[in-house]
Amino acid sequence: MTVDLQDMGQKAQQASYQLAQLDTLQKNAVLSTMATELEQRSQEIIAVNQADLANAHGLTASFSDRLTLDKERIYAMATGLREVINLPDPIGNVDKAWVNNAGLRIAKRRVPIGVVGIIYEARPNVTVDATGLCFKTGNAILLRGGKEALQTNIKLVEILRAALVKHNLNPDAVQILTETSHELANEFMQLTDYMDVLIPRGSARLIKAVVQNAKVPVIETGAGNCHIYVDETADLQMATDIMVNAKVQRPSVCNAAEKLIVHKSIAREFLPQVAQQLAKYNVELRGDRQACDILKTKCTLASPEDWDTEYNDYILAIKVVDSLQDAIKHINAHNTKHSEAIITNDYTNSQLFLDQIDAAAVYVNASTRFTDGFEFGFGAEIGISTQKLHARGPMGLEELTTTKYVIRGNGQVRK
Amino acid sequence: MTVDLQDMGQKAQQASYQLAQLDTLQKNAVLSTMATELEQRSQEIIAVNQADLANAHGLTASFSDRLTLDKERIYAMATGLREVINLPDPIGNVDKAWVNNAGLRIAKRRVPIGVVGIIYEARPNVTVDATGLCFKTGNAILLRGGKEALQTNIKLVEILRAALVKHNLNPDAVQILTETSHELANEFMQLTDYMDVLIPRGSARLIKAVVQNAKVPVIETGAGNCHIYVDETADLQMATDIMVNAKVQRPSVCNAAEKLIVHKSIAREFLPQVAQQLAKYNVELRGDRQACDILKTKCTLASPEDWDTEYNDYILAIKVVDSLQDAIKHINAHNTKHSEAIITNDYTNSQLFLDQIDAAAVYVNASTRFTDGFEFGFGAEIGISTQKLHARGPMGLEELTTTKYVIRGNGQVRK
Repeated sequence: MTVDLQDMGQKAQQASYQLAQLDTLQKNAVLSTMATELEQRSQEIIAVNQADLANAHGLTASFSDRLTLDKERIYAMATGLREVINLPDPIGNVDKAWVNNAGLRIAKRRVPIGVVGIIYEARPNVTVDATGLCFKTGNAILLRGGKEALQTNIKLVEILRAALVKHNLNPDAVQILTETSHELANEFMQLTDYMDVLIPRGSARLIKAVVQNAKVPVIETGAGNCHIYVDETADLQMATDIMVNAKVQRPSVCNAAEKLIVHKSIAREFLPQVAQQLAKYNVELRGDRQACDILKTKCTLASPEDWDTEYNDYILAIKVVDSLQDAIKHINAHNTKHSEAIITNDYTNSQLFLDQIDAAAVYVNASTRFTDGFEFGFGAEIGISTQKLHARGPMGLEELTTTKYVIRGNGQVRK
Repeated sequence: MTVDLQDMGQKAQQASYQLAQLDTLQKNAVLSTMATELEQRSQEIIAVNQADLANAHGLTASFSDRLTLDKERIYAMATGLREVINLPDPIGNVDKAWVNNAGLRIAKRRVPIGVVGIIYEARPNVTVDATGLCFKTGNAILLRGGKEALQTNIKLVEILRAALVKHNLNPDAVQILTETSHELANEFMQLTDYMDVLIPRGSARLIKAVVQNAKVPVIETGAGNCHIYVDETADLQMATDIMVNAKVQRPSVCNAAEKLIVHKSIAREFLPQVAQQLAKYNVELRGDRQACDILKTKCTLASPEDWDTEYNDYILAIKVVDSLQDAIKHINAHNTKHSEAIITNDYTNSQLFLDQIDAAAVYVNASTRFTDGFEFGFGAEIGISTQKLHARGPMGLEELTTTKYVIRGNGQVRK
């Protein structure tokens, strides 16, 4: 089997021109067919998925779980596509419009990006989720999934393409790499002639590899070394509730808190209180010397690496600071620019924190766990950008679009 | 002399945190001082620039001209800085704000990008222009200019930094590489820990090298293989005026037209008419067979490479097409996604062209020469983006900003 990426890219670009011309009702009709086809062909998908699982060796239980599709999960993917139908279509919206000095009517119109590349790992639902969001926004998609899910992903793409054909549309709007070698992955990341953006979805290791190797513009997603700073004037009950929620409600995700920073004036009162609650969830505490002095045996001394580590686990590192400015300095030096919160009742300090912390989302008196496309009300999420270009924070449908200037004149020439 | 780029990057990032907190009046005061200092120290600048010119060997006249600074040009740079004072400051603007289901008050606020890298060639005015725009938007700037202008650029940066110091601000907001080796340029393009975006300004060769070598997110600017398509119903006088303007008003720039596409039904009438006008400016015409059949000795046969070439010169390639769809297909296959125009009086065709052409700016009945930050009314321009992420088309101050989500709660935790 050989994959001709240049050919795939060219076909994707051709298909993208057709997609860009579809109206919302046409796109929604296709999404509906995709959903129905997935449901109707769920047995086929499950059979292939079972084979993928049987072929994979030495998987951890959690990896195996992420890879597995059953009827319920396939129906959930179909439901996800139907939810995308209900979202407003950003394509064609005009962000702004004006008349320039020469009398040209200039409009900045939302258009599809073109060809979106997605590189991901075990979870086959990404195949369907990402396709739904890219299709709704008129983008062609090139997928490169993990090797363990290869046949499952190929089957899903076959079904999604069949839905396009049923609507007399070019199926090359949805394509997947049928080989998962590293050489091909590198070529995929450098397909600059045809791919307009590449979005990695998965582990920190994957994202780092993509940033290192890609020549296509990348949207970096995911890494979250998030902090909760508890200020002197914090309501300590609120601070405890938020800290516990941000740490344990779902520790494996990027918007979970990994660090607790506490003002020294309340550390002695607050730390035992929050430690008691965290102990109920068996959260391991690692502190600086001051935190350990207060928490005694409940806490081990943190290493310098701890401050830069995203645990994604039931572990929390704690630092005691002398001032808000020390907290801000520490956070800006160690965070991954994802989500940071202050718990305070001081107006000035809340403003300083919001203004001076460099992150995609900055919170006063709320859990960092809200940094999420659904919680923000976008109705969808293709990822959470931790970079500053194009998109920052949760990315919904609008972040899968770009703009073009549409200019109407009546013979204007430049003087 | 050794340059420690990591150290420069770290210092730039530190300075960027200070810049982000300045209000508009503070920033404007600094810009004013920068302008005054440049004027007052113009003799110093000219002396160093003369030395740069004396050290450079084998320069073309046009290169030498771009490199040269005299009192008039220095005063023009100062005037440019004062114009930036008058532009509205986008920092702090809220793009949108809403309350989510949990009652969180979410605002998407404009903030500086952080540290902007600029890599450029001969023209020392880029040093001052780019610094003014980055400073107004609260960004620290790292500059890497061409080797021929090195001492001039170092002197300009010394003066700009002195203005910062006069206002008790960290001068590391403006830094320049004092060595111009290729190794250092590569390291510059890969300074991912500290540089948030890299903008190349210069030749197609420079931009290509940056896209190939950078690991920092790049905004690709500049290349323009722009087309004028003259439709069957075009007002031929208007078409001639626009074609001549787009070709000869300033042939060396990216928004100048390089190609003329003509509908076959009017080619015989239109081509001799436009050729006659273009002949006044000694424009060389290269056509496909049909165009050459009509224009006879005024035209030579174009090679396949012509359709993909940005001449930046008094050369125009001409193609005759059977239909609007053929024109659109040809343009999408060969353009650089910069600026494209249709000249028509047909409503449907105008809509199809605007919808189906893939470019940063699409025009009906106007010259492509209007794709420009000043002509658009932005009051400034850091470049013209031909990519689709973050910024597309002329980039003004807003394109030098990003957003952060500022979220105010009263104890919300995620359910």
